[in-house]
Amino acid sequence: MTDQRAVAPAPLRIAIVGLGTVGGGVIRLLAANGDLIARRAGRPIQITAISARDRTKDRGVDLSGLEWVDDMTSLAARDDVDVIVELIGGSDGPALTLARQCLASGKPFVTANKAMIAHHGLALAAEAEKSGVALKYEAAVAGGIPVIKGLREGAAANEIHRVYGILNGTCNFILTSMEKAKEAGHPRSFDAVLKEAQELGYAEADPSFDIDGVDTAHKLSILASLAFGTELAFAGVTTTGIRHILAEDTAEAAALGYNIRLVGMAENGPNGLFQRVHPMLVHEDHPLAHVDGSLNAVVAEGNFVGRLFFQGAGAGDGPTASAVVADLIDVARDEYGDPLAMPVSALARQPQADAGTRIGRAYMRFKVKDQPGVLAEIAAAMRDAGVSIESVIQRAATQDNQVLIAIVTHSGAERCVTDTLTRLAGSDSLIGAPMVMHILE
Amino acid sequence: MTDQRAVAPAPLRIAIVGLGTVGGGVIRLLAANGDLIARRAGRPIQITAISARDRTKDRGVDLSGLEWVDDMTSLAARDDVDVIVELIGGSDGPALTLARQCLASGKPFVTANKAMIAHHGLALAAEAEKSGVALKYEAAVAGGIPVIKGLREGAAANEIHRVYGILNGTCNFILTSMEKAKEAGHPRSFDAVLKEAQELGYAEADPSFDIDGVDTAHKLSILASLAFGTELAFAGVTTTGIRHILAEDTAEAAALGYNIRLVGMAENGPNGLFQRVHPMLVHEDHPLAHVDGSLNAVVAEGNFVGRLFFQGAGAGDGPTASAVVADLIDVARDEYGDPLAMPVSALARQPQADAGTRIGRAYMRFKVKDQPGVLAEIAAAMRDAGVSIESVIQRAATQDNQVLIAIVTHSGAERCVTDTLTRLAGSDSLIGAPMVMHILE
Repeated sequence: MTDQRAVAPAPLRIAIVGLGTVGGGVIRLLAANGDLIARRAGRPIQITAISARDRTKDRGVDLSGLEWVDDMTSLAARDDVDVIVELIGGSDGPALTLARQCLASGKPFVTANKAMIAHHGLALAAEAEKSGVALKYEAAVAGGIPVIKGLREGAAANEIHRVYGILNGTCNFILTSMEKAKEAGHPRSFDAVLKEAQELGYAEADPSFDIDGVDTAHKLSILASLAFGTELAFAGVTTTGIRHILAEDTAEAAALGYNIRLVGMAENGPNGLFQRVHPMLVHEDHPLAHVDGSLNAVVAEGNFVGRLFFQGAGAGDGPTASAVVADLIDVARDEYGDPLAMPVSALARQPQADAGTRIGRAYMRFKVKDQPGVLAEIAAAMRDAGVSIESVIQRAATQDNQVLIAIVTHSGAERCVTDTLTRLAGSDSLIGAPMVMHILE
Repeated sequence: MTDQRAVAPAPLRIAIVGLGTVGGGVIRLLAANGDLIARRAGRPIQITAISARDRTKDRGVDLSGLEWVDDMTSLAARDDVDVIVELIGGSDGPALTLARQCLASGKPFVTANKAMIAHHGLALAAEAEKSGVALKYEAAVAGGIPVIKGLREGAAANEIHRVYGILNGTCNFILTSMEKAKEAGHPRSFDAVLKEAQELGYAEADPSFDIDGVDTAHKLSILASLAFGTELAFAGVTTTGIRHILAEDTAEAAALGYNIRLVGMAENGPNGLFQRVHPMLVHEDHPLAHVDGSLNAVVAEGNFVGRLFFQGAGAGDGPTASAVVADLIDVARDEYGDPLAMPVSALARQPQADAGTRIGRAYMRFKVKDQPGVLAEIAAAMRDAGVSIESVIQRAATQDNQVLIAIVTHSGAERCVTDTLTRLAGSDSLIGAPMVMHILE
């Protein structure tokens, strides 16, 4: 009789595809914490091979001793690779090809690719289910925060009505920098702060995916599906970014007791599925108001657990690698199941909710010409649309004959706010589009 | 050929032992969210039998249709029970007998029993491992917050150096009530607030387990083992409760920019394992300072993920039931493994760290007689012990010829603070024992 305990457990052999910041982080993490991970996972996690576009690039991480493979698609078929770790990114293209190939051939797949999961998660999850293999993507949402696990497993006993959070570190860094600059008495424009964020490495050279809210929308659609047991519906996310926020908005919000945050919010109810990414005024009593810098945070509200709040680093090589390797440990432990928390066939298909019936307060800011009758025009439009005004601040003209009018509405249906904008569309008095931010109490 | 998909999956059949608040919550939760849970778990969770001490008690929950069993120990042997859910509580006695019986006979076991896990977790985990069955206890720490899962799985890729948090809702309710009373200009004593907490149901008739920090110590020892991969070492937790905190302490702390919180803190390092429960001054910039009322929160600091922060309801029937049922869903999904995150044999046995070498600032408060030379006596003791003083507040005598002296030290070794107390022991000038609270920056 063999003593099973004496047999060294087989390592989990992985191939890493994509060697950017996160890929380097995973290699460093496995080297630094290898022994501890082997104890926790029950077996070592070993890198069999790596692949990326450019072999010659210096990545600041030791790749010696790791087999380099030029044709990443060959990895899916290799018997000495137990799991593929995809860190290329992009919703389609090579990442998607690789994912399909792996899952169809029964190879477990771990990814940090939010865009791909948001767009193709349903089909990929169905494929993983069919093959009975793991498809894991903890790193796709909120970096190192184990929020995929928190929703898929931790809060699984609950009917969740609402999930929302700060899901993009770049936007949060910019917004809190504007806030701090204002507090320090030297208000700074969005453009100035973005430029600094780019220099510091907090924002990409082309920042549009982040600052226009698309990245947040990807993540939100994933959280919504897990929280509600509904089909992934990225196309149903209404998205507004932060590039039109003025230093003045930050100041007005602060004067009212709010901080501006880019919030991704999803709700599920009898009216359907509501998913929206937009800058909100978050009251300083709310925990999200104090999520500063590049941090991320997620709130989930369940019918038994109440409000759960998760916070941590939403990006960066270390935190993201932490999430990728957590997934690998789950695979090594054989503790995984349906990627979307239930079989794809069990997910509900919800109609898109009508946001117009939502009730709440809003901040509306207009840049207008400094001429008589403008406030009357705006106030009349609001009256006709049925919007009740709580407070108005009009600041003296600062430059170019422009005046800023900031209005906070009483609680009312969102459709009335939208109707106000429709009524004012094309008005000669307005300079640029008005800014609307809903208020999170 | 049979179409496997057409076969309805077998339910997970459970027996609930103990029908207090949490037991009732589990029954209500399974009734309310049963369909959703069946979709998430892949099969329904059904209650086969229930057992508790008193059959006649009205629990405000519908028990009709549930088989009542008087002899709970018979449940471990029943073939129609897949999992035992233990909600009796108590470190030893019937709960432990039942746990041993179940695990030895290969029956999965889910519990909310922090005292039992803190005292007997190692032996029980070893038993579960031997039988290859689940031993799950998410509800034992921080109520509805999935922090056992967060450490065991979510942060598993990290070497964690420090884990700490607010783990007792009763203490936090009392401390924040004292804080609010002070802010409102009507400071209230610990005893008055405790009495109110008891009337509101936030504190037990015998509150000592909570207010003396024992409950927090149980939970801390569990978190430490999971975070560090060390053996459970409840006996190594140094514990101080909150019953000696004065309304004046709350006021002095607030004046300095701090809130008082009962913090359980564990650190692992070359000097060994440090585990301490004591009231701390938490700086208002720290997220723990804003964990109010009966909320709980846990911070874990990993070498790759950075600082993770989890917050939610730490007690109550709904949140605790949410955690219990999350464990059941893991079992139903067959997604579980070693109870302490790794085989018991792989856990490290760490010596207890010498707290005296820890460096930090401290708040020291003395109640003294209003007579000449007292401050000189205290200051001399501090000087001789090597404690450097940052600030001193001496308040005028309020009653009974008593004066309050609150001192904040500069950063220094904790042993010097302890040495100060030793030097002052037996002094005629002091009224009662001095209060020391370390400062969390």
